[in-house]
Amino acid sequence: MARTLYELCGWDPARIFSPYCWRARMALAHKGLDFESVPWRFTETDRLAFAKHDKVPVLVDGDRTVADSWAIAQYLDDAYPDAPSLLHGHPASYIFVAAWNDAIVQAGIGRLVVSDIPALLGEKERAYFVESREKRFGMTLEAVTADREERLPAFRASLQPVRMMLRAQPFFGGDAPDYADMIVFGSFMWARSVSPLRLLEPDDPVSDWRERMLDLHGGMARQAPCFGA
Amino acid sequence: MARTLYELCGWDPARIFSPYCWRARMALAHKGLDFESVPWRFTETDRLAFAKHDKVPVLVDGDRTVADSWAIAQYLDDAYPDAPSLLHGHPASYIFVAAWNDAIVQAGIGRLVVSDIPALLGEKERAYFVESREKRFGMTLEAVTADREERLPAFRASLQPVRMMLRAQPFFGGDAPDYADMIVFGSFMWARSVSPLRLLEPDDPVSDWRERMLDLHGGMARQAPCFGA
Repeated sequence: MARTLYELCGWDPARIFSPYCWRARMALAHKGLDFESVPWRFTETDRLAFAKHDKVPVLVDGDRTVADSWAIAQYLDDAYPDAPSLLHGHPASYIFVAAWNDAIVQAGIGRLVVSDIPALLGEKERAYFVESREKRFGMTLEAVTADREERLPAFRASLQPVRMMLRAQPFFGGDAPDYADMIVFGSFMWARSVSPLRLLEPDDPVSDWRERMLDLHGGMARQAPCFGA
Repeated sequence: MARTLYELCGWDPARIFSPYCWRARMALAHKGLDFESVPWRFTETDRLAFAKHDKVPVLVDGDRTVADSWAIAQYLDDAYPDAPSLLHGHPASYIFVAAWNDAIVQAGIGRLVVSDIPALLGEKERAYFVESREKRFGMTLEAVTADREERLPAFRASLQPVRMMLRAQPFFGGDAPDYADMIVFGSFMWARSVSPLRLLEPDDPVSDWRERMLDLHGGMARQAPCFGA
């Protein structure tokens, strides 16, 4: 098979934890496209030189190489117009969802789970990760998450716009998921893949939405290695 | 002319301050459609009985009556397909923007400006408004906004997703505004129409976006009565 996706993992190649790789994974499945996962680790920038990029996901589809999850989504809709749309013909309307997700969900989850990540990494990647993230946060990773249980209610409250949307429709995409769902779900899969922290209460409508996403494509995301959160 | 829009005002019929009426106003202008504004006040539910609805905006377009700003946007795209699109063919993608706006922008602005509104209302509407809103907030309107200057930084911070979006594109709609812009701009026009409070710092990219919206359609929104905020 000639379609491969370079994805971030730690010492276990089956535990894919980059939110952006999860966007690409779900996008490929949405289009009904098989792919082979190529494990990639934080320090292996040389292995992506062929893509003129230094981060995953990178998709190689036959003779085409596409780096960056957003470019991959656009490419897939262009290259496979007969498969279900990811972007519904107006990519601009997904940019705000991505901005909201990165500012609120992604940043919020980061401050809740970042200290769980080093244990998943090999020695070399762990040193890189801890040093770069401690520099970014200006404190040890343990200090970042020390009061995480107390901060969970504020994180859950920050998802109120999603709850309000879910009163009108079951997915960001309407009656069926589209790339907006994958943007937000990617962050939740990141959390699920790296941390035992229970981000959502089971009676939260956001949890119901996440369950629906976990069910897609024969439970593809549900079957990925996780800590049961 | 056979197109009329019932819109919320106070004693001054020119000061339209409902965010949802502003969505409808901007939507009509976007489609290039003239309309006559029919002033409507909070207690005049009888006057909307013909529309089987109790709130504005209500659009009467020839023999069609459409109540609710969202229904109006969908109607306008259906009825005038040759004019520029409001919804770009996938209405579901605007539902999250509306939910985010209502939870964050609209609710945030409400807690900053609600005490400025009674002065704009006639006696009867003022009694209705103060009683219903004080019940909703569980305190006097003056108490709601007493510390508003101290809460402004938190409101501005809550707009960070918009700033991040604006790094990628000048409007929610991409290179040009669409109905997502009108949803959020409606709330800012509400604030501008009722309160002297300066919601945004002039060097905020969100302020630049608001200026671009104020410029649309020959400065239609800019020319509306306001307090200079």
